[in-house]
Amino acid sequence: MNVFVIGVGLIGGSLATDIKASYNNAIIHGIDANDINLETAISLGFIDKSSTFANLNNADIVIISVPVDITEIVLPQVLDKVSDNCLVFDVGSTKERLCTIIEHHANRACYLATHPIAGTEFSGPKAALANLFRGKTNIICEIEKTGLKQRELALDIFNRLGMRISYMDAKAHDKHIAYVSHLSHISSFMLGKTVIEKEQNERDIFDMAGSGFASTVRLAKSSPAMWTPIFNQNKENIIDALDEYIENLTAFKQLMQANRSTDIFNEMKSTNRIKEILKGIE
Amino acid sequence: MNVFVIGVGLIGGSLATDIKASYNNAIIHGIDANDINLETAISLGFIDKSSTFANLNNADIVIISVPVDITEIVLPQVLDKVSDNCLVFDVGSTKERLCTIIEHHANRACYLATHPIAGTEFSGPKAALANLFRGKTNIICEIEKTGLKQRELALDIFNRLGMRISYMDAKAHDKHIAYVSHLSHISSFMLGKTVIEKEQNERDIFDMAGSGFASTVRLAKSSPAMWTPIFNQNKENIIDALDEYIENLTAFKQLMQANRSTDIFNEMKSTNRIKEILKGIE
Repeated sequence: MNVFVIGVGLIGGSLATDIKASYNNAIIHGIDANDINLETAISLGFIDKSSTFANLNNADIVIISVPVDITEIVLPQVLDKVSDNCLVFDVGSTKERLCTIIEHHANRACYLATHPIAGTEFSGPKAALANLFRGKTNIICEIEKTGLKQRELALDIFNRLGMRISYMDAKAHDKHIAYVSHLSHISSFMLGKTVIEKEQNERDIFDMAGSGFASTVRLAKSSPAMWTPIFNQNKENIIDALDEYIENLTAFKQLMQANRSTDIFNEMKSTNRIKEILKGIE
Repeated sequence: MNVFVIGVGLIGGSLATDIKASYNNAIIHGIDANDINLETAISLGFIDKSSTFANLNNADIVIISVPVDITEIVLPQVLDKVSDNCLVFDVGSTKERLCTIIEHHANRACYLATHPIAGTEFSGPKAALANLFRGKTNIICEIEKTGLKQRELALDIFNRLGMRISYMDAKAHDKHIAYVSHLSHISSFMLGKTVIEKEQNERDIFDMAGSGFASTVRLAKSSPAMWTPIFNQNKENIIDALDEYIENLTAFKQLMQANRSTDIFNEMKSTNRIKEILKGIE
């Protein structure tokens, strides 16, 4: 079984690792614009050999795990080259534009739009982890547009990797993911920025920071190369989410200015039910 | 050695646990407005016996670990009752107002203003943990106003508990802690609120949330009874921090609206240095 992984970073590398462990007959071919990353991936053992787009006609599976702006360019090229029976899936954090781009492609049935909700704030082949996907949710969009054979193979892979499957249309995916993922990244980056700006001349100030601060700014370590195109592709939904977030922050500030302690207490109390919501995640 | 702990929750309970383990001769007396919490603390074993303010004249050490609005009331009462040699310290997240309140108290030398940067998002006696303070920073304010004997005893305790000591004036403490702690709590609470509001009719939506979301909203589980008075006492500094945070979020949104991808990338890139800053914390 010839598996081509385009982009051998955190997600591509973690998928390659688990697929190698789950399928005895899998040969993992790596394609990456960065030769050093490709060499690292081969030396780490999760990629068997380096390859190129010219060989994609031999692929049984193609995984596209590059930043979402590159996926827009790469996906049609991959679909042009693969055989009818090939399964192609991407793992990006935006789905609507991508599904539209290949909507009328002759090989549309080869493609499955997926978004595994898994990752860390690190990137590159050295960040790849075995069993990263176990117990995590994989969101699949527009399943009905994917061929039967491809669906079966994809579900077999995700099943072996231990993922829970969730189905959603691409538009709804992008809207909701703006709230539960993209907004968190911006809140974290801007929190980091605010504190760094304020405290740039205060060398020892971060001694004062505890695990709470570390938790809220953790996502500000994330890769700008990965996140800039996500913010661009999901712009409208993210701006809606940001507007509501800024509105809530401003309202909270006004409660503080007016010394409305009971309202401040109640705001926090009602948000405490995030505890129940997080139980399924952590 | 008679140690009185007023407020037997997460921090008071964790201090009691470590002090019992570090001093063979320590007898831990618990005082708490909530009888059930006191009984729980005794049954968990970190409080030896329940007590009242009337017995404080026998105290060698008094630890005040209650919400900061209650501390303002309790601290002068405690100083009224203790003997000259007693060490009294609180553990609250605000220091300026408290130091001002007892500035001219006859027993000012008994008091040490401390803020151990340790805790979790949980509260109450069952949340108490052994070794919670090991390797953590303890900020001490206005050390020069505390008596020599009290200073020595306090440093002996903090040393045995494995804490790093940082000295700061109370005003500077409150200003900086607004950025590296209080702001994180508000950003987290409002993020939780924004997502809950948006998704209240979408039962399955939190299946889409991953560890990144969990990390950024973790602090929204925190106790409103503890945080409402902190926000009140440190109002001016927190409003400054909130203003800057809202400004940064708004500027980021405007970059998105104007499709300024390079600027968005650079904003994130420059904030990535939070990685180095967090190395000392996590």
